[in-house]
Amino acid sequence: MVLDSEALGSGALGSLGLGASGSGNGGSASRGRLVGPVRVVGVGLLGTSVGLGLRARGIEVVLADASPTHLSIAADYGAGRPAVSGDKPQLVVVCVPPDVTADVIARELAEYPEAIVTDVASVKLEILQNLRVRGADVSRYIGSHPLAGRERGGPLQGRADLFIGRPWVVAAHDAISYPRAGVIDDLILDLGATLVEMTPEEHDRGVALVSHVPQVVSSLMARRLIDAPSAAVNLAGQGLRDVTRVAASEPELWVQILGANAAPVREILAAYRDDLDRFIDALDDPAAPGARRRVAEELAGGNAGVARLPGKHGIDRRFSTMIVMVDDKPGQLARLFNEIGEIGVNLEDVRLEHSPGVQVGLAEISVVPEAVERLTEELVARGWRIAG
Amino acid sequence: MVLDSEALGSGALGSLGLGASGSGNGGSASRGRLVGPVRVVGVGLLGTSVGLGLRARGIEVVLADASPTHLSIAADYGAGRPAVSGDKPQLVVVCVPPDVTADVIARELAEYPEAIVTDVASVKLEILQNLRVRGADVSRYIGSHPLAGRERGGPLQGRADLFIGRPWVVAAHDAISYPRAGVIDDLILDLGATLVEMTPEEHDRGVALVSHVPQVVSSLMARRLIDAPSAAVNLAGQGLRDVTRVAASEPELWVQILGANAAPVREILAAYRDDLDRFIDALDDPAAPGARRRVAEELAGGNAGVARLPGKHGIDRRFSTMIVMVDDKPGQLARLFNEIGEIGVNLEDVRLEHSPGVQVGLAEISVVPEAVERLTEELVARGWRIAG
Repeated sequence: MVLDSEALGSGALGSLGLGASGSGNGGSASRGRLVGPVRVVGVGLLGTSVGLGLRARGIEVVLADASPTHLSIAADYGAGRPAVSGDKPQLVVVCVPPDVTADVIARELAEYPEAIVTDVASVKLEILQNLRVRGADVSRYIGSHPLAGRERGGPLQGRADLFIGRPWVVAAHDAISYPRAGVIDDLILDLGATLVEMTPEEHDRGVALVSHVPQVVSSLMARRLIDAPSAAVNLAGQGLRDVTRVAASEPELWVQILGANAAPVREILAAYRDDLDRFIDALDDPAAPGARRRVAEELAGGNAGVARLPGKHGIDRRFSTMIVMVDDKPGQLARLFNEIGEIGVNLEDVRLEHSPGVQVGLAEISVVPEAVERLTEELVARGWRIAG
Repeated sequence: MVLDSEALGSGALGSLGLGASGSGNGGSASRGRLVGPVRVVGVGLLGTSVGLGLRARGIEVVLADASPTHLSIAADYGAGRPAVSGDKPQLVVVCVPPDVTADVIARELAEYPEAIVTDVASVKLEILQNLRVRGADVSRYIGSHPLAGRERGGPLQGRADLFIGRPWVVAAHDAISYPRAGVIDDLILDLGATLVEMTPEEHDRGVALVSHVPQVVSSLMARRLIDAPSAAVNLAGQGLRDVTRVAASEPELWVQILGANAAPVREILAAYRDDLDRFIDALDDPAAPGARRRVAEELAGGNAGVARLPGKHGIDRRFSTMIVMVDDKPGQLARLFNEIGEIGVNLEDVRLEHSPGVQVGLAEISVVPEAVERLTEELVARGWRIAG
């Protein structure tokens, strides 16, 4: 049941590619394979999405939630059926808020002594330590973390494809045997995610750096806007919008995440503060000897850091961008993309930019570098204005 | 020659709307009107764009640059003709790096005693003070700052529409008379920008908040990635990408900007550091009484701050977003936008999201809220999968 990338796009769900792709059981008889049923505890965005994705592959899913309303929404939505006593889940996936995750895992381990249990909380070490301290059977538990989410939560935001192509970390530890962990690998691959194995410590430090600290940095920047004059705020451009976008996230969830991962977050924030102190010192007297060099070094360090990000913004920048002017009225963007399709070039990314009251928008489109010259020529020949 | 919003989209340049829109000289005979020639000093991105925009309105532009190569590129590109001795510019627009802006303004004021001089540097107070100290004729100088730019610089990045719909600050001061400043107003409006009048102090504090401090915050965040394990960096999602996007900016330019605006930037960074200190303290012992409340308050403050941003991300969020699944192959996105056009709904924004090796992309489209229900129904009826 392992989903290979070839299978994507040709499965029973058409473009979703989530149809069952056959067997896969051949050469690995000793490892547990995911056949179900899978019990999903907590049917918010993640739990509902797990249920929808597994149901799309024909796996039986039973759902539990403290809220009867959420439970019936998720069941009606097709994520599985409400759990009943006597269910014998092969695998339990705990998708409840971080604060109560360890409690729920311990309860599920006790209630289903044959089941393997995992969870999807975004901090891993504290949960494992908590389970060990209370003497839970961690030989049947392995934590995991799908790096997928949306700005909005709740069962109605769930979707079967939420995890496709996203990293999903398995937080490895020694107390669970290799064969038992096989069902977790299947879960992840069946949902179309990319399995990443790390220790809980590595994971927590990693997400502190790439997710938790950026959240703090962004929120603190946005806080500076609270009392700012409107005239100043109205000068804001895309840079400030980007830096502060995640500051719109839900505080309640983030308090739990940051509380559970306090030590790594604190350590990285402290290093950040050291850099900030140096920066502020350099601005005390920017004409002082060495002050400019220090500022330049901090900024150049930012260049070097951002270049490490994988993908389109990183050092192995795979796509080139072009800017096309588009009249801001219905049908114009359609015409543009229609003609790009006719030209036979695949759009990798699109961003639109326009200002209220202005009749012209700019579409920044990303394509593979080798397509730029031809696409430019063809679009210009069709009367489009290319602006970069 | 003042461009009104009606004129946009119907001018000599078609969708650009930059064709001359007639007179406009009628009732304001006492104010200087921009007729040209305009001398542009420095033909990087901004200078070339000023030249291209004015040429598109039929105004004579003469160009000067320390680099003969840049000068000939900009002239070939259509931004104006190289300056010759005997030119009699009505207006000089200084578009050189911040470090040398005051020097060049002083030289231009002396060399063209009939001309009004402006500049486009992103910090305003220091330049005015510098000119006053050296006894330059500031009765003919008024600084300005278009909030427009692109990640890439140089004359070949210039475009006539760069300023359309962007704020362009005029840094007002008492030494220049109202009639004389009229040509600056014309320049800004002729280029399609939105004129914003502020004092130099207000401007510098405003851009410190919405541009300079976010740059520092982003660069320092990106610096943390330099020595991070690849496994951690590979977990990065859109949040980190957004927070660090501007960290890819050119250090050389930013050293000059931050040096010229050190006091306001320093003050805001110091307030940011105070918040950061409180945050780090709260993480020392997240279980201590009040620690969680402090973290929650900082994060909620971020919510309140980001809500002040105007436009689609702000509190008066004008658009609703929908997520549509799109096969990742040529023509699919075109088909989507084509059909949205047929349905008669105007797309306000689009973002695509997909991962390497995955055959399905997600198009997040923004439309006016009242269109969501109908658009969803119509798209579903046409076989599209809506995922939120």
